[in-house]
Amino acid sequence: MSNPAPFKIDACVSPYLYPVYKSKDSIVVIIDIFRATSAICTAFEWGAEKVIPVSSVEEARTYKEKGYLTGAERDAVQVDGFDFGNSPYHYMDERIKGQTLVITTTNGTQAIDVSKDAYKVVIGSFLNIDALCSWLVKQERDILLLCSGWKNKFNLEDSLFAGAVTEEILERSDRYQHGDGCLALKYLYQMAKQDPIKFLNYSYHKERLAKLNLKKDIRYCLTPNQTEVIPVLENGALVRMKQLVDC
Amino acid sequence: MSNPAPFKIDACVSPYLYPVYKSKDSIVVIIDIFRATSAICTAFEWGAEKVIPVSSVEEARTYKEKGYLTGAERDAVQVDGFDFGNSPYHYMDERIKGQTLVITTTNGTQAIDVSKDAYKVVIGSFLNIDALCSWLVKQERDILLLCSGWKNKFNLEDSLFAGAVTEEILERSDRYQHGDGCLALKYLYQMAKQDPIKFLNYSYHKERLAKLNLKKDIRYCLTPNQTEVIPVLENGALVRMKQLVDC
Repeated sequence: MSNPAPFKIDACVSPYLYPVYKSKDSIVVIIDIFRATSAICTAFEWGAEKVIPVSSVEEARTYKEKGYLTGAERDAVQVDGFDFGNSPYHYMDERIKGQTLVITTTNGTQAIDVSKDAYKVVIGSFLNIDALCSWLVKQERDILLLCSGWKNKFNLEDSLFAGAVTEEILERSDRYQHGDGCLALKYLYQMAKQDPIKFLNYSYHKERLAKLNLKKDIRYCLTPNQTEVIPVLENGALVRMKQLVDC
Repeated sequence: MSNPAPFKIDACVSPYLYPVYKSKDSIVVIIDIFRATSAICTAFEWGAEKVIPVSSVEEARTYKEKGYLTGAERDAVQVDGFDFGNSPYHYMDERIKGQTLVITTTNGTQAIDVSKDAYKVVIGSFLNIDALCSWLVKQERDILLLCSGWKNKFNLEDSLFAGAVTEEILERSDRYQHGDGCLALKYLYQMAKQDPIKFLNYSYHKERLAKLNLKKDIRYCLTPNQTEVIPVLENGALVRMKQLVDC
C-alpha cells in the first residue's frame, strides 16, 4: 500500500476555530461533556425519538409554545420556563419516550450549528464512547473531534474526551494520520485517565459546576458506556443512528 | 487579601482564535517556536536594532527594494530573493548589527498582526524564556500566551512553550488565576520536558522540518536561555525591551 494512513483524525478545541479545520468529507464528533452531549446521549437512552438542537433560547421558546418538551441552559443553569436544563439526570424521565425534544445550551448546540454541513455530525460523550469508536473506525473516513469548549475557549473536559477517542481510534486502526491537536489531547488523556475527576479538579468549568452543586452530574458525565446509542444529525435534527447492525 | 489571584494567565492555541481571548489590558506573548520567534530573538541577540514584522511577502519585497535586510519564509522554506528565511542560524550574521530588519513568516507575523492592539506584545521562545518569565511576573498584569500554530491549527511545539511559561509563572507567583487552556499545556509540558525532542517526534511540523533537514534548527529552537533580550512591539516594529534594569 503506497499510503498506509489514508485517513486523518484531528481535534478542534473550539467551535470558533472550526472554519480552520472544516472539511465537507469529515465525520464531525460534537463534544460537550459538561453537559450537553452527555444529556443528549441520555435522552436517547431513555427513549427520545428525536432531539432538535437550536441555537437561541427564543427559538426554543417558540417550540415550547407549540407543545414540545424543551431543554434550555445558559451559564450551566436551567432557563426558567423550560422542562429541562442540560443535566443528564433531567432526561432520565419517562415522559420523553417516543418524543421529539428541543434543546439549546451555551456551547454544545453552537458546535452542532457551525458543523452542520459536514459529511456527518454525531454526538459523543463518555456515556457512548465505546459504541462511537467502534462505529467511527468502520467508516473509513476522516474524523474531526469538535470540542464545544466554554464560550469558545478551550476547556479541559471536552479535550480529555477528544484525547480518549483519539487513543481508541489509533489503537484500533493504523489507517489514521493524526494532527498535532488530537495528539496533544491524547497525551493529556493518558495523564488523566487513572482519575479524571482528580485531574479536572483545577479546571475552570469544574469550579463553576461545583459551585452549583453538580458533583453528581460530573461523576455521571465521566462514566463510560452507559448507552450504545449514537445520535446523528439528519435534516437538522438528531436521531438515533440505525447503522450498528448493517455497517 | 480578598482576592489572592487578581491576574489571569491563559493560552490561545491559534491566532484565528485570538478574538475569543483578546483583552486590551493583557500582555500578549507571541510564540512561534519553529521558527519565527526563535529567529527574532536570535536577531536581537546578534545586534539587530529593530525588526519590522509584515504579513505579506509583497510587503517584505517593497522593503527589500528600499534596501532593508529582509527575511521571508513560506511553508518552512526561505522565499527566493530575500536575505534570510526563518532559521535562527540565518540571523547569526554580523551584517545585522545595528540594522532594521523586515520579516514575514507563515504563522508568527500573522499572530503579531492580530494582537497588535493589546496592552503590550512581546516575543517568546525557549531562547529567552527565563528573561521573559522574570519580566512577566514583575508586570502584575494579565498574560495571554498566543501560539502561532501552523496555518491557524494547533501545533505541539508552540503549545509546549506556552506550557513551560505557564509552569514558570505559576511557580514564581500565586497571584495568577489560570484558564483551562494554559493548564492543559502546562500538563503537556510536564510530560515533555525531560526530552522535548523525543516528545515532538510525532508532531506534524517536526516531520515537515525533518524532511527539510532542519534537525539542527529544531535542537537550537528548543535550547533555553541563549539570550536575555525580550523583543517588544512598539509603533509597529519590534525593538529590544529596555526595562530589565529599571523594572
